[in-house]
Amino acid sequence: MQLRELFKAPPLNTKIKLQGWIKSAQVHGESLVFIKLNDGSIYRNIQILFKNKLDVSQLSTGSAIEVEGLLVKAKKGQEEIELLADRVEVLAKADEKFPIQKKEHTVEFLRENAHQRVRTSLFSAINSIKNEISFSVHEFFYKKGFIWVQSPILTTNNCEGGSEVFEIKDAINIFKKPALLSVSGQFHAEGMALGLKNVYTFGPTFRAEKSNTSQHLAEFWMIEPECSFLNLEGNMELIEEFVKYVTNRVLINKREELEFLAQQIPDNENLIVRLENIVNSSFKRMRYKEAIEMLQKSGVKFENSEISYGIDLASEHEKYITSQLQMPVFITHYPRNIKAFYMKDTDDKEVLAIDLLVPEVGELIGGSERESDLEKLRNKAIEFSIPTEQLEWYLDLRKYGYYASSGYGCGYERLVMYLTGVKNIKDIINYPRSYGQLAF
Amino acid sequence: MQLRELFKAPPLNTKIKLQGWIKSAQVHGESLVFIKLNDGSIYRNIQILFKNKLDVSQLSTGSAIEVEGLLVKAKKGQEEIELLADRVEVLAKADEKFPIQKKEHTVEFLRENAHQRVRTSLFSAINSIKNEISFSVHEFFYKKGFIWVQSPILTTNNCEGGSEVFEIKDAINIFKKPALLSVSGQFHAEGMALGLKNVYTFGPTFRAEKSNTSQHLAEFWMIEPECSFLNLEGNMELIEEFVKYVTNRVLINKREELEFLAQQIPDNENLIVRLENIVNSSFKRMRYKEAIEMLQKSGVKFENSEISYGIDLASEHEKYITSQLQMPVFITHYPRNIKAFYMKDTDDKEVLAIDLLVPEVGELIGGSERESDLEKLRNKAIEFSIPTEQLEWYLDLRKYGYYASSGYGCGYERLVMYLTGVKNIKDIINYPRSYGQLAF
Repeated sequence: MQLRELFKAPPLNTKIKLQGWIKSAQVHGESLVFIKLNDGSIYRNIQILFKNKLDVSQLSTGSAIEVEGLLVKAKKGQEEIELLADRVEVLAKADEKFPIQKKEHTVEFLRENAHQRVRTSLFSAINSIKNEISFSVHEFFYKKGFIWVQSPILTTNNCEGGSEVFEIKDAINIFKKPALLSVSGQFHAEGMALGLKNVYTFGPTFRAEKSNTSQHLAEFWMIEPECSFLNLEGNMELIEEFVKYVTNRVLINKREELEFLAQQIPDNENLIVRLENIVNSSFKRMRYKEAIEMLQKSGVKFENSEISYGIDLASEHEKYITSQLQMPVFITHYPRNIKAFYMKDTDDKEVLAIDLLVPEVGELIGGSERESDLEKLRNKAIEFSIPTEQLEWYLDLRKYGYYASSGYGCGYERLVMYLTGVKNIKDIINYPRSYGQLAF
Repeated sequence: MQLRELFKAPPLNTKIKLQGWIKSAQVHGESLVFIKLNDGSIYRNIQILFKNKLDVSQLSTGSAIEVEGLLVKAKKGQEEIELLADRVEVLAKADEKFPIQKKEHTVEFLRENAHQRVRTSLFSAINSIKNEISFSVHEFFYKKGFIWVQSPILTTNNCEGGSEVFEIKDAINIFKKPALLSVSGQFHAEGMALGLKNVYTFGPTFRAEKSNTSQHLAEFWMIEPECSFLNLEGNMELIEEFVKYVTNRVLINKREELEFLAQQIPDNENLIVRLENIVNSSFKRMRYKEAIEMLQKSGVKFENSEISYGIDLASEHEKYITSQLQMPVFITHYPRNIKAFYMKDTDDKEVLAIDLLVPEVGELIGGSERESDLEKLRNKAIEFSIPTEQLEWYLDLRKYGYYASSGYGCGYERLVMYLTGVKNIKDIINYPRSYGQLAF
């Protein structure tokens, strides 16, 4: 039996068997042992009482044990149930030097022991919510008839242009040409949307970035839906529905874990209120031009102090905007020069781009309607210095009934950060890869 | 409205609007146009009748159009419904040279136009089933309380030993050490199972293999569950439940697509019977030793003619076994020398390995119980010439309550091949990467 089920509907006064790991063990007197046990199915522990002699040196923290006994109402303590064991068997004793002891550990310490972080309540809860998020992403698209597609990881082109890209050593020996690691699945998704209509990718992407911050990874997962016959407005509706669906699922199915994280993570007390606001608000729509005007009128002295039409919005600008509106906001119609070459131009030298900004986090999702005209796209690639030799197949798509393809990209780890309140992206992915860091 | 919904529950005699691509268009006389339209939501097309003058040169195959009209019962033809259009608007005209014309194309031709394959009924149906499979994999594990975990793609170690591994160029500049592309997520999954108990990966893995066959890819996705407190027998039960769950979901939700593939793919007539047999049979269990005896007694002259204890089973051997049993069979207890170093030894110099063989396909899944004893594992790594410098964290797991961790690996594309009857793995993944092939 799993603890998760046990806590949900405790079969009181029946005999049950549990397997799990010792979080802590204490001996009282000659023959009373208290064990806190966790079995990985939920972040919470159960208390085991064993009224018998036991060699307590065997009960080191982290040891795998099997216990059998009567499940009863707890006399005291945080949990409502406890187990009166009549058998405790040590299956695999843990070395006394197990780094994850009962005391609180800093997240920095745990990051250095990333292969053992999941043995803490904190990372158990994070992973449980993370799983709810990934499943609800798949469920959202499945219900809407979207097809999950595999964008290749090994590619010949650098989708966005500009980003630092990993290259495969001696790829020529295998592929007869150089191979890069994908920075985005969008181009391949566009190909599949032109035929399957509604598709999405959910897979890893890479940046050989030389920045080691709390927001950057060299390897992270992206969710990238792509739809034919979808315009800018339809894209915003899809994004809003997507964010609300996933947020709502987490609020319903992982409420307890959210409450735990609201306590455990500094400055995270309002986590649940923040998520409820997302579900209940109507996302605002604002053009880039209006955003600039809002910033100019604000009177705030930003670090990036030049606020004029044409600048890239900095994180502080985005946070100001959402803090004023107190709700998620779509910024659209950016100047064409500060966005990717494949976005569709308007007559005003703007592009049909969308960024979704959310309170306290800033940019969560970016999307656009893609340029559908072959010659315009080719010229813009040249103008933006994007090499097109390896992109002929992508340009080629425009020849054969390519109409109003739109989509967006949502960083999975960022989405999880936003839904948990975790501040460092390296605490979201279990084995983070970033500048200078490739352990485990 | 989407065609998939339309075919399921046709709102007859109501006016509807459709967007999609022209599969073919014919003009009869002055003012009658027949259009076959597909919208990507299902492999089937709908017939559009338009009684009006129309410049038929605009109706090239592949063009994106919007039509509006009355949905009625079809007078004749394969489909039960058709649309009497009162408006046909060309949204994006396709170039006349569109390679995917009405005629049948060979799969070889379509492979060369991989970015356009999804515009055929065949690849539309394959992708629809494929999506059902990936979603039901996630659903299966979600319902059982497994946590989806991200095994890293960039790794420092070659999990299995032996396989050809891709390496990142100049990784040293980013990570201060060489970086490889993952060949399996198992090791990292083991770390997470030791804490979360039941986890699974579903992500890409890589082999720099120099073989270009219908069965090999350089990039493919693996499903790798890992469970603490699970022995060999439990692992087999999990695999059997997994295979049956996914097969059954496809049989129920994609029956029509299966029937279509049974017709379209050569020698695939018995697809549905084969899948039903899987769901209804009890998978057999057989030790490697018994399998060898069965082959020896068979009297069959195999190409790999030496049949004696200690050989690796060849594909022809595996197919013989399943053809005799006419059901899926687990082969267990292989000689330790022909399996991976991390598998748990028995006293008989065998390992607690499992291969699942299925009729007509051969090996579908491989798994094992892992060695839990640190010293045995370290010694076996040395014996098998596996470098351990980058594996200390993995060995380290054994120190802290590691008990009976078992899991298996299932190649996603192979699973899809098996459930669709598609013979070439390059027709499963939309943009295949293999020896000498990195187009698109």
